[in-house]
Amino acid sequence: MSDHTVTAGIILIGDELLSGRTQDTNLSTIAKWLEPLGVQVGEARIIADDAEVITQTVRTFSERFNYVFTTGGIGPTHDDITADCIAAAFDLGISERDDAIAMLRERYEQGELNAARRRMARIPDGASLIKNPVSQAPGFQTRNVFTMAGVPSIMRGMLPDIEHRIQGGAKVYSVNVTAAGIGEGDAAEPLAEIERRFHGVSIGSYPFFNADLRGVTFVARGRDKAMLEKVEIALSALVADLT
Amino acid sequence: MSDHTVTAGIILIGDELLSGRTQDTNLSTIAKWLEPLGVQVGEARIIADDAEVITQTVRTFSERFNYVFTTGGIGPTHDDITADCIAAAFDLGISERDDAIAMLRERYEQGELNAARRRMARIPDGASLIKNPVSQAPGFQTRNVFTMAGVPSIMRGMLPDIEHRIQGGAKVYSVNVTAAGIGEGDAAEPLAEIERRFHGVSIGSYPFFNADLRGVTFVARGRDKAMLEKVEIALSALVADLT
Repeated sequence: MSDHTVTAGIILIGDELLSGRTQDTNLSTIAKWLEPLGVQVGEARIIADDAEVITQTVRTFSERFNYVFTTGGIGPTHDDITADCIAAAFDLGISERDDAIAMLRERYEQGELNAARRRMARIPDGASLIKNPVSQAPGFQTRNVFTMAGVPSIMRGMLPDIEHRIQGGAKVYSVNVTAAGIGEGDAAEPLAEIERRFHGVSIGSYPFFNADLRGVTFVARGRDKAMLEKVEIALSALVADLT
Repeated sequence: MSDHTVTAGIILIGDELLSGRTQDTNLSTIAKWLEPLGVQVGEARIIADDAEVITQTVRTFSERFNYVFTTGGIGPTHDDITADCIAAAFDLGISERDDAIAMLRERYEQGELNAARRRMARIPDGASLIKNPVSQAPGFQTRNVFTMAGVPSIMRGMLPDIEHRIQGGAKVYSVNVTAAGIGEGDAAEPLAEIERRFHGVSIGSYPFFNADLRGVTFVARGRDKAMLEKVEIALSALVADLT
């Protein structure tokens, strides 16, 4: 296992996410799937169905992160333009591929495989397909960019055929300690002190509020599992001290 | 009411959103609140607690969109760096402000208002405060950028004191028609035809799948309410035709 940091950028494509009509869940699904592979999500962007923006974002992220994941815009309708934008981002051609058509035939009868659905077999040149066990229309990998469906159940179905292509870095472990009845501001000072003491560990504090309860959850992350156990003890002592 | 498009960019700040530990809901809350004000969300970015990235993203979005909303990173702990980044983005100073301290005093007794909590009264020069009826620590407006809390209940509490500062554009209306039992690919061709017929209306199609049912929801958006009623009729006819 390597000790360098491997990063991912996530691009969530779709007007419906920006209008608030659809609540994204793909980011957290992908982030949680990447964590045990030793890949940290560095940034996510939620962008409109706009060819220029998609193309530019793919290009920027492909340079900035080790891996890029896109979701959305690979269906059969006129606003499904992601495949063309990936091709444009890397100056590649794009055309209907026989292996992708073969996958679609597993789902659609001859008569159903109309022009719109055949669009889902248009793949940028040189890309390798990603299997879709849910609805067959494949995703694809172009260099370090993985293009997946936007519908969460279909997206999740594509992850198993991506996992073996990821070379992760150092795994990041986390521990968390929750304290009821205290405020973030009570803990700020001693928390910074704990972070200074344990080099390489970063600690976040996440306040929560509801009708009955306020409190804070502290989450410590780092690569050294043994050190994190010590951090957990230090955090527990801090919480005992404050409550 | 103006007929130009007014846009917003949303910046969601916090490592916990990128790790998948916390599921964001602020984007859809803000987007739904902006819609009746005549403001469309153009892009959202979910970024880490990283000063350089926050500063650069604020600068980029402030130039690109009419309004920018940030959430997260204005609490009392060492990883709460948003206020400093906003100041840096606009080359402004930042200091503790008496009016912000006065708000904090409504909540905290003298002894509780420690150095960590006083950090929440550090405001970029010239910014105007945004009231926080939930936990008092204010948000603030710097030029076209509104900086809000990350905790959803606190963020929502700040929106009423922002609403009167927004000059919206043409309101965008929407209608939607849901068809059970059809696939997106069945409708792609006639859908594009409907979009061509009604200029200025954009139609998205959103497939859904669950254990019992597959189907598609069509959402048409546009500024001309009368035209949208005709689109709704056309979409309903299309659905009747396909099912």
